[in-house]
Amino acid sequence: MHRLEESASSQSQSSVQIGYIGGGSRGWAHTLINDVLQCDDLAGTVSLYDVDYEAAEQNAKLANALTSRSDANGAWTFEARRNVNDALADADFVICSIQDPVDETFVHDIDVPQEYGIYQTVADTVGPGGVLRSLRAIPQYREIAATVREQCPDAWVINYTNPMTVCTRTLYEEYPDINAIGLCHEVFETQRLLADIAERYVDDAADVTADEIDVNVKGINHFTWADEAHWHGHDLFQYLERELEERKPIPGFDPGELDDESYWTNHHQIAFDLYDRFGLLGAAGDRHLAEFVPWYLDIDEPEEIQRWGIRLTPSSARTDDGEGPAKMDQYLSGDAAFEFTESGEKVVDIMRALEGLEPIKTHVNHPNRGQTPDLPTGAVVETNAVITGGGVAPITAGDLPREVRSMVLTAVHNQETLIDAGFAGDLDLAFQAFLNEPLVTVHRDAARELFAELVDRERDYLQDYDLEGAAVLEG
Amino acid sequence: MHRLEESASSQSQSSVQIGYIGGGSRGWAHTLINDVLQCDDLAGTVSLYDVDYEAAEQNAKLANALTSRSDANGAWTFEARRNVNDALADADFVICSIQDPVDETFVHDIDVPQEYGIYQTVADTVGPGGVLRSLRAIPQYREIAATVREQCPDAWVINYTNPMTVCTRTLYEEYPDINAIGLCHEVFETQRLLADIAERYVDDAADVTADEIDVNVKGINHFTWADEAHWHGHDLFQYLERELEERKPIPGFDPGELDDESYWTNHHQIAFDLYDRFGLLGAAGDRHLAEFVPWYLDIDEPEEIQRWGIRLTPSSARTDDGEGPAKMDQYLSGDAAFEFTESGEKVVDIMRALEGLEPIKTHVNHPNRGQTPDLPTGAVVETNAVITGGGVAPITAGDLPREVRSMVLTAVHNQETLIDAGFAGDLDLAFQAFLNEPLVTVHRDAARELFAELVDRERDYLQDYDLEGAAVLEG
Amino acid sequence: MHRLEESASSQSQSSVQIGYIGGGSRGWAHTLINDVLQCDDLAGTVSLYDVDYEAAEQNAKLANALTSRSDANGAWTFEARRNVNDALADADFVICSIQDPVDETFVHDIDVPQEYGIYQTVADTVGPGGVLRSLRAIPQYREIAATVREQCPDAWVINYTNPMTVCTRTLYEEYPDINAIGLCHEVFETQRLLADIAERYVDDAADVTADEIDVNVKGINHFTWADEAHWHGHDLFQYLERELEERKPIPGFDPGELDDESYWTNHHQIAFDLYDRFGLLGAAGDRHLAEFVPWYLDIDEPEEIQRWGIRLTPSSARTDDGEGPAKMDQYLSGDAAFEFTESGEKVVDIMRALEGLEPIKTHVNHPNRGQTPDLPTGAVVETNAVITGGGVAPITAGDLPREVRSMVLTAVHNQETLIDAGFAGDLDLAFQAFLNEPLVTVHRDAARELFAELVDRERDYLQDYDLEGAAVLEG
Amino acid sequence: MHRLEESASSQSQSSVQIGYIGGGSRGWAHTLINDVLQCDDLAGTVSLYDVDYEAAEQNAKLANALTSRSDANGAWTFEARRNVNDALADADFVICSIQDPVDETFVHDIDVPQEYGIYQTVADTVGPGGVLRSLRAIPQYREIAATVREQCPDAWVINYTNPMTVCTRTLYEEYPDINAIGLCHEVFETQRLLADIAERYVDDAADVTADEIDVNVKGINHFTWADEAHWHGHDLFQYLERELEERKPIPGFDPGELDDESYWTNHHQIAFDLYDRFGLLGAAGDRHLAEFVPWYLDIDEPEEIQRWGIRLTPSSARTDDGEGPAKMDQYLSGDAAFEFTESGEKVVDIMRALEGLEPIKTHVNHPNRGQTPDLPTGAVVETNAVITGGGVAPITAGDLPREVRSMVLTAVHNQETLIDAGFAGDLDLAFQAFLNEPLVTVHRDAARELFAELVDRERDYLQDYDLEGAAVLEG
Repeated sequence: MHRLEESASSQSQSSVQIGYIGGGSRGWAHTLINDVLQCDDLAGTVSLYDVDYEAAEQNAKLANALTSRSDANGAWTFEARRNVNDALADADFVICSIQDPVDETFVHDIDVPQEYGIYQTVADTVGPGGVLRSLRAIPQYREIAATVREQCPDAWVINYTNPMTVCTRTLYEEYPDINAIGLCHEVFETQRLLADIAERYVDDAADVTADEIDVNVKGINHFTWADEAHWHGHDLFQYLERELEERKPIPGFDPGELDDESYWTNHHQIAFDLYDRFGLLGAAGDRHLAEFVPWYLDIDEPEEIQRWGIRLTPSSARTDDGEGPAKMDQYLSGDAAFEFTESGEKVVDIMRALEGLEPIKTHVNHPNRGQTPDLPTGAVVETNAVITGGGVAPITAGDLPREVRSMVLTAVHNQETLIDAGFAGDLDLAFQAFLNEPLVTVHRDAARELFAELVDRERDYLQDYDLEGAAVLEG
Repeated sequence: MHRLEESASSQSQSSVQIGYIGGGSRGWAHTLINDVLQCDDLAGTVSLYDVDYEAAEQNAKLANALTSRSDANGAWTFEARRNVNDALADADFVICSIQDPVDETFVHDIDVPQEYGIYQTVADTVGPGGVLRSLRAIPQYREIAATVREQCPDAWVINYTNPMTVCTRTLYEEYPDINAIGLCHEVFETQRLLADIAERYVDDAADVTADEIDVNVKGINHFTWADEAHWHGHDLFQYLERELEERKPIPGFDPGELDDESYWTNHHQIAFDLYDRFGLLGAAGDRHLAEFVPWYLDIDEPEEIQRWGIRLTPSSARTDDGEGPAKMDQYLSGDAAFEFTESGEKVVDIMRALEGLEPIKTHVNHPNRGQTPDLPTGAVVETNAVITGGGVAPITAGDLPREVRSMVLTAVHNQETLIDAGFAGDLDLAFQAFLNEPLVTVHRDAARELFAELVDRERDYLQDYDLEGAAVLEG
Repeated sequence: MHRLEESASSQSQSSVQIGYIGGGSRGWAHTLINDVLQCDDLAGTVSLYDVDYEAAEQNAKLANALTSRSDANGAWTFEARRNVNDALADADFVICSIQDPVDETFVHDIDVPQEYGIYQTVADTVGPGGVLRSLRAIPQYREIAATVREQCPDAWVINYTNPMTVCTRTLYEEYPDINAIGLCHEVFETQRLLADIAERYVDDAADVTADEIDVNVKGINHFTWADEAHWHGHDLFQYLERELEERKPIPGFDPGELDDESYWTNHHQIAFDLYDRFGLLGAAGDRHLAEFVPWYLDIDEPEEIQRWGIRLTPSSARTDDGEGPAKMDQYLSGDAAFEFTESGEKVVDIMRALEGLEPIKTHVNHPNRGQTPDLPTGAVVETNAVITGGGVAPITAGDLPREVRSMVLTAVHNQETLIDAGFAGDLDLAFQAFLNEPLVTVHRDAARELFAELVDRERDYLQDYDLEGAAVLEG
Repeated sequence: MHRLEESASSQSQSSVQIGYIGGGSRGWAHTLINDVLQCDDLAGTVSLYDVDYEAAEQNAKLANALTSRSDANGAWTFEARRNVNDALADADFVICSIQDPVDETFVHDIDVPQEYGIYQTVADTVGPGGVLRSLRAIPQYREIAATVREQCPDAWVINYTNPMTVCTRTLYEEYPDINAIGLCHEVFETQRLLADIAERYVDDAADVTADEIDVNVKGINHFTWADEAHWHGHDLFQYLERELEERKPIPGFDPGELDDESYWTNHHQIAFDLYDRFGLLGAAGDRHLAEFVPWYLDIDEPEEIQRWGIRLTPSSARTDDGEGPAKMDQYLSGDAAFEFTESGEKVVDIMRALEGLEPIKTHVNHPNRGQTPDLPTGAVVETNAVITGGGVAPITAGDLPREVRSMVLTAVHNQETLIDAGFAGDLDLAFQAFLNEPLVTVHRDAARELFAELVDRERDYLQDYDLEGAAVLEG
């Protein structure tokens, strides 16, 4: 940790060095720029690394220009780096948000399984798509961990990339002493849902924000569960039964409304359906929750899933570039002004907490050290944590009811097996996990063919595996 | 334990009192009669209890008549009992083999799920049929345990009834100090398979019997696994890879050969397929193994399963009375002679071991006390055990590879949940397990309807449950 | 939880009902009065129960008089109760600080073992004194738990009584759904020590308060350990080695200075000696730490312990009434003014947090739910926790190094056995724990005699035990 | 495994290659010679390695001469080896029984602690002597394990050397795939005691042998416990209470009788005293049991321990050469005839079992794989096991009562810490275990001095440790 020397103006600022892997992105990187420039008590340097160096350079240029604005904290410097070692050298924090070329990978993850009758709503965490994405990510994250070990062994690594659990777990498997957490939005949505419930059911409650909701979360990323929620000491779970009744059927929801723009629509129908059956609220978006069991996505036509108020994210939605580049041109040319917003992201608050400025409590993905005692030790789980200058300390979340635990364990076991397979380069072992994915309900022969076909299509991204020796590829 | 007084002729015989629940059966009860009458160093009384008293009385009559034969140990007395308390009073051993009326229960277990596209090869352990059978069995086995606690608290209870795991587990849940084990044949078949392999691959091996095969078994009943096998110190697993190759496709097997008589045919195709993928041999019949994962029974037509050398057991095969009654008439009338056979059953050897006569090692179903440390403590598991005058001591079997453990755990968790549901009379809780059955890959709404329909058809046998308060029955 | 109605003046106050068991005390009860009257956003009623009703009444009188002072929050009412049920009826919070008559119990706990060569510095937690005190406390705390279950099942119970672990553990054993924590000062002292170290070693650090120290605590009450400490992100453990050197021998310490007034002196010599040997800092006063292992109190004369900068607390120091009653007379007569102080106690902050007003992080004694995964689940341990309107959630503290764990486990096992013995009324079982107390290094016969003698002297307070059937009392 | 070719005479013999480390001994090696020559169905070669090559050569000469005797199995060859690699090359079995020069090591282990007031009855397992002996043994056993890994990776290693637990544990720590067990006599003595009890209490029981006693053993070597014992199904624990009464005071025992010849006398007084207090019978000799807790050896004069019917083994008893060499001369010169005896040792039966000839059940020291689920996984524990051609499979022994577990755990934790210290060469870590030895009740300063003095005296045997960097050696 670097502390600023005694110049009067910076006395109250902690100076930090941030390395950003995937620093050319228009999403997470812009959010970071937005957030650090609005934070008064941090200062320092952000080194942006990206396989697309130009993109990182554009982000650096944009951000440096913004530092001169009067509403920005000017004590930041941004720089693009061609080499990841340079970007991470002596970093206090490392942020990761990376992605393989979508058309060569993610598109297959989604489209090929559909030919075998397996539909996924997201395909980035579990199911056939999640398995392949995990296999691709593990070698990449080993390399990141190795770079951290060498360049900045004490840095805090903050990961945004999916599959969240596998990426974060890989960091710890490669470099057990790493300081790393994974951050995900999904639980915030659940807090917003509960804030809304507080407003509607608790007397005198108004303008309740998600931050005010104390929710006990446990499980794993995208298959997180809430078993208690309070707003200023007021128990909110007592209202869920009533809320459940009102949501049958989806209030004011007409499946027809789900058009091409609404891939990310979420009506919490599955979250409540899980509550109905298991007594705990699913604490992630329905698109994610649906993929961890076979019951929701047992469909013959994509439209059927709309009964739950969600739709499949087609692969086309993934390749669409969006407005990123055009907007960036406008920013850089001065045709459009970058507007500072309240991003709602915690990353800067977390850095402030780790610098010892102000502790916070939030949910994180972190290896299980007892916070969920009924899940395997060392597996990456999602619970609340307290973050202080002393580091990240997960808060005990308690056990899951047996059948919920059983579903979560199936996913955890598969993730752990994929880690083993990834480190060993062993696709036959990976296929063991593939067979045990809940969405893989097809015949054992079809499962093998599907796996082999996916590997074949994404061969270029699986060069760290023993492709020759894999029996699964031969039938 | 009763010991014979000092009359010269009986000096070497241990005298035991056996209570038999289901003592009117033509199967297990006849085997017991066959076995005890051929055993020289035990003597005593067998009290036969059955809801069908006449059947028990016929068995007693037959057996008593046999005692006078010169090739029989004459020191046994058989008696039919109208009251289970009388049958168990002061018993040293209690044997259980019971069944509900098949047409009112088992037939539905098999036929109703087929209407929802769920096919089962046996339907007595897991899957929709296994769940319903478990729900029916739990109250019955609670009553048996309570009777044991009252009438013969130190007796050894030997269970043959399916679902083996749930029945045995219920005994311990109701009466934790009970001495009980469950016995099943399936592993013997695996030993026979391995004996055959020994003969074919090991030089000079000939006439190898199943008993000579040391096999390390672990897992749960009907989903048991073998990870090591030796014949007189000779490692047999080294030959499995070659054997696997020779069995692709099934040697000399034509699916067309599977006619109505061949419900129980088994070509170990699935046992070897599991070996192929997971490195451990499935140590139960393929009909059972197929039901613990969705890949084999993901079929649209019943015939498709024949690709694995097995066929579905139709419900008609279950209602067929067989030759039992006619044969019994012939025995009693003297028209046919009961022929003593080598049954291959272990029950008499086990009683001899528990009497301190001769220790044996065999596989049993018993609560997990560390024999499989990666499965939950207290769950009923299947491993080898040593049986001596000091009791039954399971032998440590070691851990399962992660993905095998994951599959087994799913079943164990469901069984444990069914126990909880059975003791609480809670069908909503039972439905949680139902949803997590690997064969239940149908849509969540269909799953609910199927469960409700099964409960409705078998209502008479589920009177210990809260049928009124169950939300699952209402949609 | 009661919320105040809408009168303007109280709009921002949470109204709470507090039941106080031991409400006649001059120590803890006065602190509570001091603290609640200085808290602006709580209001309500404090019901004081004490076996000495007069004392409770005096406290109530004093406190009510104080409410009219301008510097006090006047929205509180205090009342003395003759019946514990009345005191706890509908309480939101229950506070416990009780003690048996010292001359009939504690004096023996200290003096009798000395005749056997066993010296204790405190004798309220472990060792012969701790065992006897535990045996006396368990029936009392069972009764408290039963009263809570009946009168205020959802209340939060805050315990101050020693033996802290056994008392808190008893509450949960009797009433598993209780909400209870135990609070102790000792860790605050460690934080003060570390604050002092921060000031001396960290550049620019000045006026560091104990609250600013983030310390990771784990273990059990009075045998707590710290393995990490930070001040605003600045690692303090890096200075301990130097500090250790400077403290050899005790800086400026002359054992002769330990006069009659200095029973509570603490120079952290043992805390640092443990750090020297085990790498973790003892996080309790040396007087407590010394009692958990045999090495420090292996002395022949009481003075020898002064080598560690502490002295034995003689039983006379326990019977000394102190200035309590005289002072109280002065308060009530108006001859002396009760002065509000900054008590440093957390109890009011904790109540505010549980009311949803402001979360806090502090260390608490609480059943182990994973916060220290290498200690038995359910045992009461001491770690940090986050307290919010949703309750108390312990923070994961991680494992202890093996040999530290071994020492802590010995104490935990004894505490758990004492709980079993207390609930069963079984002194023979209690003696098993007694034999395994680290300070009980005397001959097995002497150990038995000592135990029997202590039981005999304190017979009146052990009426819940089977005194007749205890073999240990007979030799 | 080697199998004999087809010569008619040897058809029924398994041919094995045995490597013996410590093959010059007069004790264990002579027993092995005695046993293999009387075994009909094994044959092969025994390679004797010893640091004293002459001694090994003499043993080989003696044994080879014996093969020609008519009452011996002549199919064995014995050879002395100068190099341990040669002795172990391609071995099927490796036997270890080694010892450091007693005057330079063991004598100090016993005598030095006495100067600090610490008396040990054996000093080879725990306490100061046990710690030092462990530290010396670990590097030696690492080397043995490494040699096995290289020369005969699949061999079964049978260890007789103390400290049994630490030696066996070291083998597995160095080479996790090793096949190794440790064998010890102590439990046989307990079986003999129980056989005697059977004869005296059970009607008609006569000539009961130790082998006939089924005893459930658990714990660790020399601190083993029995919680059940049966003779042909007859529960023997029901008589222990009566037996206990009769043994107070020791029947016919006068401490004066313990002369210089009676170091190994054992009256089971401590075994029964433990039963009296904890409900389980100590299942090792009293000399060993006494060292695991501080109560028995809390003595001021060596004679005091005789109250328990045992005496200290003085160091002089250890240096006494006994009749070994003289006897050997007589054997070799033909002046005395080596007489075959019934040794009672199991090693040949175990080899026969592992060769697939005949399974046996006996107690062994083996890593914990679930056989004692309440002790740490991987620690070496002592329980029954079944040995077949498939290997050694420990039998589940169940949990220990909490306070017994607590005592055993203290020893296990120390043993595990010594392993860590031995592998790291870290004497400061070793001293952590030393401090936690139950017999180390002396002052912390005295403990340090004692440890440093022992290390200093045995420096030559501790060259694998970091003697320079050890803070404990400096005060």
